[in-house]
Amino acid sequence: MAQHDAVEVIVAKRDGGELSDSQIDWVIDAYTRGEVADEQMSSLAMAILLNGMDRREISRWTAAMIASGERMDFSSLSRPTADKHSTGGVGDKITLPLAPLVAACGVAVPQLSGRGLGHTGGTLDKLEAIPGWQASLSTADMLRQLEDVGAVVCAAGSGLAPADKKLYALRDVTGTVEAIPLIASSIMSKKIAEGTGSLVLDVKVGTGAFMKDLERARELAETMVALGTDAGVHTVALLTEMSVPLGLTAGNALEVRESVEVLEGGGPADVVELTLALAREMLAGAGRDDVDPAEVLASGAALDAWRSMVSAQGGDPAAPLPTARETHVVTAPSSGVLTRLDAMAVGMAAWRLGAGRATQGAAVQAGAGVEWHARPGDEVTSGQPLLTLHTDEPDRFERALASLEGGYDVSPAGTAYEPGPIVIDRVG
Amino acid sequence: MAQHDAVEVIVAKRDGGELSDSQIDWVIDAYTRGEVADEQMSSLAMAILLNGMDRREISRWTAAMIASGERMDFSSLSRPTADKHSTGGVGDKITLPLAPLVAACGVAVPQLSGRGLGHTGGTLDKLEAIPGWQASLSTADMLRQLEDVGAVVCAAGSGLAPADKKLYALRDVTGTVEAIPLIASSIMSKKIAEGTGSLVLDVKVGTGAFMKDLERARELAETMVALGTDAGVHTVALLTEMSVPLGLTAGNALEVRESVEVLEGGGPADVVELTLALAREMLAGAGRDDVDPAEVLASGAALDAWRSMVSAQGGDPAAPLPTARETHVVTAPSSGVLTRLDAMAVGMAAWRLGAGRATQGAAVQAGAGVEWHARPGDEVTSGQPLLTLHTDEPDRFERALASLEGGYDVSPAGTAYEPGPIVIDRVG
Repeated sequence: MAQHDAVEVIVAKRDGGELSDSQIDWVIDAYTRGEVADEQMSSLAMAILLNGMDRREISRWTAAMIASGERMDFSSLSRPTADKHSTGGVGDKITLPLAPLVAACGVAVPQLSGRGLGHTGGTLDKLEAIPGWQASLSTADMLRQLEDVGAVVCAAGSGLAPADKKLYALRDVTGTVEAIPLIASSIMSKKIAEGTGSLVLDVKVGTGAFMKDLERARELAETMVALGTDAGVHTVALLTEMSVPLGLTAGNALEVRESVEVLEGGGPADVVELTLALAREMLAGAGRDDVDPAEVLASGAALDAWRSMVSAQGGDPAAPLPTARETHVVTAPSSGVLTRLDAMAVGMAAWRLGAGRATQGAAVQAGAGVEWHARPGDEVTSGQPLLTLHTDEPDRFERALASLEGGYDVSPAGTAYEPGPIVIDRVG
Repeated sequence: MAQHDAVEVIVAKRDGGELSDSQIDWVIDAYTRGEVADEQMSSLAMAILLNGMDRREISRWTAAMIASGERMDFSSLSRPTADKHSTGGVGDKITLPLAPLVAACGVAVPQLSGRGLGHTGGTLDKLEAIPGWQASLSTADMLRQLEDVGAVVCAAGSGLAPADKKLYALRDVTGTVEAIPLIASSIMSKKIAEGTGSLVLDVKVGTGAFMKDLERARELAETMVALGTDAGVHTVALLTEMSVPLGLTAGNALEVRESVEVLEGGGPADVVELTLALAREMLAGAGRDDVDPAEVLASGAALDAWRSMVSAQGGDPAAPLPTARETHVVTAPSSGVLTRLDAMAVGMAAWRLGAGRATQGAAVQAGAGVEWHARPGDEVTSGQPLLTLHTDEPDRFERALASLEGGYDVSPAGTAYEPGPIVIDRVG
């Protein structure tokens, strides 16, 4: 590998230039080895945030992060693979019904997931609410489960893109999280290293999402689709609505319960709609657009796949889910129409009730979270239960209620409410 | 002091906002104490470099760096004080004749200086070529010498603006040296903390200077003049020419010899001109523009002050100066007019001959350096000595000669050469 100098690379980007392939390869490798210091990488990250990177640079940056670690390979499987990644939303339990549904349609879903930090929950935290379920699998076990069951959701090993792991922790404390080239390469380096054949990205837009406005969400989606395409992974992105939380619950066991309702043929309409939309994209990406996921869902085959998936990782799909020790009901302040329920307010409340964690490695409560009993557009009556807060620690109610203040509007009866589409646009 | 958070401060500047006084005070203090980490400060420095700071922010930043350490106070002296700072040039020995000249005019010159790094020499390195001369003085000795002799050039203690010391070392390795707000506050925090009543800045422009173009040099000069003015220090800047090296020598003992020639009433015309221009500004800043420094120079009083200044710090002004063990002569390649002698080429050659250091703390050679026997505009004859290189280590000649390659032009006899002015402009 060609030898460069950290200051040379920083100055090139600082002055608005493009980094060469050789500079990118060197800086990622040298950073992973500790030769480029944290204070040099953070200065470079800020220069990238403010001056950008072009498509070639981002592709190379991503490839260099992939090259910093191991890669998985699913080519030995008898069926095609498809994965989904969401940029994170409130009440976003879609992976739970989606992975077994797509598996039941004949496409393997190898989902390496993370734990939540902040106001959006993590998929592993949700599944860990199921008694006995284990997130850690060996690669051999993962391959076996993909062949036998067709779906696996498990913890990503530390061997995938270690440069990204180090860089992400650095960006978190240096004000450089919000750089689209760095967000895109962080997500895509892990997904490409994971070895999926096709990928669907669910890029959330709105108050409860990391991307608050459509323009930046679209830029992120386009950047990630280009990265996947450049790496030979069939990649599509859906831009989806995240100003209103998904479904009727946010919290670990609460969202598992709602996901099972969807797999049983019920559940909130928005969760069903988004699950089917993402399933269709995953099937198309894997060359199986001949299968209709709605029919498979209705047949009960997806519920069977869910039970197999949970059992294979030690979970008991029939065991009762944990519930929180304490609840607190928020009632409607007046009669009329619920015209706003803010995703960020609900997400913050669920987090403060104990469903999420404030620092990496902290424990979460399986039963904590928020249920809402109406969705925007629904009529409500003064004094009826509007939200139910769940926690094991009642001293958490006060701060959760503070998050919800101003987070919803009840308008006079008859006020028109036009719900927007859940899938706003498609990129790819 | 109000409590802030490093990411909050970084993000404010990253997003193009102004930092509040409270944010600036906190971040400098917390960085000095180690609460804000290097990787956070370097990311902030890059955001400042790319997004700038306004006059209020730079003044506050400078004040916060001053507040991180001790301040000196010369108010007990019987005469006014004036200091000069140069941004660094090749052959820039001006402090040596200037300090005793201004002292001989009745104004005290308290100059805290540094050692050189890279292609421009340090004033302390030059004076240390004088047998016996000591750079370190206690504050009491410094005050006594200022009262008795009127001029002192000595090493800055580590107690002045320690935040700047830490930040400068960080900027050096993170590609953030070139931010004008940070350059200006770095220089001015030390000069204001030093306690001088008035200050003249010699901002060099050209190939041998840190600032290669006039526009950026002017911006730096204006920023520093504003900072001094805001801090109550009478401050003026001269923008001066640094594409051609000053005088006829670059090197420690070589420049001392040339400075003494100026004090004796001779010396190169450009050195005399710049010394007098800066002296006039210092005298005016200190309220003594009734004195003509040219007359004082001609009277021999400045030479007397030089001898007293050298003796007071243990030096022997009558001792022979060290000379290098080896010399190498470069001859004129043709007859004609010397139309270019590049300051950077000469500075690099002197550095490589041993006059400067590559790493902090390394030793320098007292006798090493470059003499040139013609200045641009002079006629030369093919084969005549053009440059003489001096070093104790003859294996250094090869790399020094490589630096000089392409560093000068001899044009056909009769070619017109219009020298530009030494003082290009004045700010303040």
